[in-house]
Amino acid sequence: MVDFQGILNSIHDDLKAEEVKGIVASYIPELSKKDVNTLGLFMQHVDGRSFSAGDAFTPFSIQSISKVLALSKAIAYEDNKIWERVDVEPSGNPFNHLSLLELENGIPRNPLINSGALVIADILVSHLENPKEDFLNYVRDITNDQTIKYNFKVADSEESTGFNNFAAAYLLKSFNNLNNKVEDVLDFYFHQCSLEMSCAQLSKAFYLFANGGKCMKGKKHITKKQAKRINAIMLTCGFYDEAGEFAFEVGLPGKSGVGGGIVALLPNNFIISTWAPGLNPRGNSLIGMQALEQFTSQTNLSIF
Amino acid sequence: MVDFQGILNSIHDDLKAEEVKGIVASYIPELSKKDVNTLGLFMQHVDGRSFSAGDAFTPFSIQSISKVLALSKAIAYEDNKIWERVDVEPSGNPFNHLSLLELENGIPRNPLINSGALVIADILVSHLENPKEDFLNYVRDITNDQTIKYNFKVADSEESTGFNNFAAAYLLKSFNNLNNKVEDVLDFYFHQCSLEMSCAQLSKAFYLFANGGKCMKGKKHITKKQAKRINAIMLTCGFYDEAGEFAFEVGLPGKSGVGGGIVALLPNNFIISTWAPGLNPRGNSLIGMQALEQFTSQTNLSIF
Amino acid sequence: MVDFQGILNSIHDDLKAEEVKGIVASYIPELSKKDVNTLGLFMQHVDGRSFSAGDAFTPFSIQSISKVLALSKAIAYEDNKIWERVDVEPSGNPFNHLSLLELENGIPRNPLINSGALVIADILVSHLENPKEDFLNYVRDITNDQTIKYNFKVADSEESTGFNNFAAAYLLKSFNNLNNKVEDVLDFYFHQCSLEMSCAQLSKAFYLFANGGKCMKGKKHITKKQAKRINAIMLTCGFYDEAGEFAFEVGLPGKSGVGGGIVALLPNNFIISTWAPGLNPRGNSLIGMQALEQFTSQTNLSIF
Amino acid sequence: MVDFQGILNSIHDDLKAEEVKGIVASYIPELSKKDVNTLGLFMQHVDGRSFSAGDAFTPFSIQSISKVLALSKAIAYEDNKIWERVDVEPSGNPFNHLSLLELENGIPRNPLINSGALVIADILVSHLENPKEDFLNYVRDITNDQTIKYNFKVADSEESTGFNNFAAAYLLKSFNNLNNKVEDVLDFYFHQCSLEMSCAQLSKAFYLFANGGKCMKGKKHITKKQAKRINAIMLTCGFYDEAGEFAFEVGLPGKSGVGGGIVALLPNNFIISTWAPGLNPRGNSLIGMQALEQFTSQTNLSIF
Repeated sequence: MVDFQGILNSIHDDLKAEEVKGIVASYIPELSKKDVNTLGLFMQHVDGRSFSAGDAFTPFSIQSISKVLALSKAIAYEDNKIWERVDVEPSGNPFNHLSLLELENGIPRNPLINSGALVIADILVSHLENPKEDFLNYVRDITNDQTIKYNFKVADSEESTGFNNFAAAYLLKSFNNLNNKVEDVLDFYFHQCSLEMSCAQLSKAFYLFANGGKCMKGKKHITKKQAKRINAIMLTCGFYDEAGEFAFEVGLPGKSGVGGGIVALLPNNFIISTWAPGLNPRGNSLIGMQALEQFTSQTNLSIF
Repeated sequence: MVDFQGILNSIHDDLKAEEVKGIVASYIPELSKKDVNTLGLFMQHVDGRSFSAGDAFTPFSIQSISKVLALSKAIAYEDNKIWERVDVEPSGNPFNHLSLLELENGIPRNPLINSGALVIADILVSHLENPKEDFLNYVRDITNDQTIKYNFKVADSEESTGFNNFAAAYLLKSFNNLNNKVEDVLDFYFHQCSLEMSCAQLSKAFYLFANGGKCMKGKKHITKKQAKRINAIMLTCGFYDEAGEFAFEVGLPGKSGVGGGIVALLPNNFIISTWAPGLNPRGNSLIGMQALEQFTSQTNLSIF
Repeated sequence: MVDFQGILNSIHDDLKAEEVKGIVASYIPELSKKDVNTLGLFMQHVDGRSFSAGDAFTPFSIQSISKVLALSKAIAYEDNKIWERVDVEPSGNPFNHLSLLELENGIPRNPLINSGALVIADILVSHLENPKEDFLNYVRDITNDQTIKYNFKVADSEESTGFNNFAAAYLLKSFNNLNNKVEDVLDFYFHQCSLEMSCAQLSKAFYLFANGGKCMKGKKHITKKQAKRINAIMLTCGFYDEAGEFAFEVGLPGKSGVGGGIVALLPNNFIISTWAPGLNPRGNSLIGMQALEQFTSQTNLSIF
Repeated sequence: MVDFQGILNSIHDDLKAEEVKGIVASYIPELSKKDVNTLGLFMQHVDGRSFSAGDAFTPFSIQSISKVLALSKAIAYEDNKIWERVDVEPSGNPFNHLSLLELENGIPRNPLINSGALVIADILVSHLENPKEDFLNYVRDITNDQTIKYNFKVADSEESTGFNNFAAAYLLKSFNNLNNKVEDVLDFYFHQCSLEMSCAQLSKAFYLFANGGKCMKGKKHITKKQAKRINAIMLTCGFYDEAGEFAFEVGLPGKSGVGGGIVALLPNNFIISTWAPGLNPRGNSLIGMQALEQFTSQTNLSIF
């Protein structure tokens, strides 16, 4: 039997000693304060066992990882109708994300790039009575943890500096691909991204994607097919311009956030989350990528 | 001696009878109400004589023509410092104006495309104490006409539907190429574009560009070199994606607006304005272009 | 135990009756002659068992599927040095593949788009003494089948009409990313693409990717890690602009060709090939995609 | 009366003393050998007078300046039919000329960028019996000078290194916008660009554009309207990505070449040519631009 705990420990110790740790995101004050030496790991097996190492229980800003949670809620409401407004193909274009949106007439390439996530946010704002409150409750529900919170300071910072997201939202609006007011969609979106969760909480929240749509409490939130769709999207689009590299190095569907978190999973098997705030030049956690690469190499558990 | 009046009359009568008149802009209600059969012509000679035909004295929405007036005021304030924030090259790209802005790191191609005009608006908002009032006074001053007004309905319409301009402004902001608040810049910009002027007023306002920087009252507003710069920009960038065609067909520096107006001029010689609300597929007045083509052919007065 | 034979039979019968079958590629005469009703299926299990239905043993033009075979040979020679000249990210850009190459300074997005495959061809031309002969022998060797042949008519047709490939090759050359003469690289490339193989032969040729680098005869051609890399590339880049859709619908790494063939595989498990000449608008076999989707749904064997 | 000779002398002396002279093109050996300190000026008035300073009579590689001569011959054959295959708008895009060609379905933006000039070359290859010989005779004829020659070494160099032109030609071919064989079109094109002419010869050759289509011998080669069209194209498209800057600084239609030559003209007035091999970062002669700027400032002869 695989010694998961031993493997997590050895990865943790090995990477703590690593000298190059990437650069902590500095575009908003709250993120820049994080210690580059932080490292947390948490693995949740679908059989119920879990294993951790390092700062696995400290909440951090999950940022773009929230896009997958929002997507799951939107899919629960609209299923395949979503794909009339967002595509499911990799974006493959680092330098000019608005260009692509413009060339493709306001249809974002996929729901995990910012413009696509804004369309998803718009869908949720349309469906939820109290969008921010209801979405928080959804995340608490699938994680089975009432302590999860937004960080309002982070949300406010994004709201006053996230000009590129405003530009994307208005461009979507100009293509009639945003039904609600830009301010309302962005307010929801910035709060969604400000969610703070620990590695442990993230692994539990993503349990449903590894478990055919059922969360740890056994409640069915999305169908098996919807879970498969989300996993496929994470694999091909979850790592910005590094999707191909991640697919190879790690070989798991996953999603990273600029706060330094990564969640990855092997369907019907396990979910693993890492947190290390230093980013590589492409915006993914440098040490987190290495941790996951070591994990799949040592356990031989990947999709390839 | 050239019979300007006779030429204007014959052009007017000839084009009134033309069957294909283009399509009136419909994206805001105020513009769509205009009669496609309207045609006004007004020529102002630098020697003081003037000639008119048709609806030459009815004010209409000058829209993008206002960009040249705003540019002249901004150049008066900042001269060549402007070119650190805007380039002077033709944009040559019809389909994706935000793409270009993104690829070129937030430096608009020239001050007559929307994103460039927004930077100019930002400069004026920085310099003018009461931007909207002061700019209106400037236009009244160079035209020597206190009756010129904004159309607040048009400005409001743009403000509530001009999502693409919002997107451009936020993109500029994300590249640090907008110093004031997006809302303030756009509020000014939409008012600037809502200016209503007749062919006669436009020809008088543009007198300073044909006259080395001095308006009809003899007051110097910009230098000779600045006037030359603005004329060069009008020639290479004044007609959206049809600059090359206009340069050939008409052979004069000029600027068109989506309200169906066009102003063109021959330095040290004359200014001519036309108004015909039907647009060609590239957004320029269909009949106006023909009127100017006929005028330069018949008078043999062009730069080529 | 899964009844693979029964499943193949039922898929075959079901899809034979399908009315919409896509459009046979017509840009070269040899391809356009194929019957749109043709359907072949062949599954090779890594345990040695194999199953077939329909035209599983008729050779057809494998076209772009050959890119994976060429890649495996190039990787065997140069391993990770390849990635200095080609990237591994999805291209995500249907309309303008040369644009992307130009914007990214002559580094193709991945080895499965044409420009990337040309760089791979260049590498093989550099390493192989008699490129065309040696590559054919390699394919025969990994397939364990000496009857595999080039179709010289197809290669000639491409050579006299494949102007876009010439453009890509010269663009690569202008960026110093082609070491051999353009004519030599293209001559090799067009022959490589003209290979004719049946579904059965393709499944056997791709056995090594499902088997950690070892072909059916047990000979090691590439390392386990290299096989994993190729599988990851197939998953993220194997289906032109439909990679995301295929990842979801089928959930297997694979590669399609404009001749109507598709190969897909589940590592350590099986390889399945289909042939149906009618293409969907994105250039992938319409019926082949459906066959694979049905196969993974019915067997529940996919990576997600 | 303007002292043209005095002005040319003073410009020559002033700029000879200039320290920053730009960088001589080095991509082919023949060009790189030129002395950066060379400076030639030649002005031809339409009234027959001419003036010169410096190396005005030494032939140099005219390169892209030849595009205007080729265009005039093609227009003489096909008049407005040309514009079905080439547009007349500025390109406005420095970094990715093939991208634009691809996005616009193989229609080059104008006849003075490389891809447009290749279409013009294709037209001439179709019309001329012995393309290279006949075109040379045309140039000799309009210049009234039988000594003008191709430089075969330069043509050969381009032929063996001009991969980007090959890429453009094949891309045009893939869009069916090249009727002759790529090799034939490029062979003609590289010879056309290798023409060697002095400032004096260039000014005489371009006389017809300043003179409504008639060359110095009084022979009509193109119509007045065609001359006007060519002048308009030179003004909006003659200086790569610096057309707007040149229009302002110099205010004349003109064309530059990578060999360091520039020709500019004021219709019905004069033609002026400069030669100074050092280029600015945008590929235009640094000292040549300054010479022309000084000339129009001092004579006050420009179109604005």
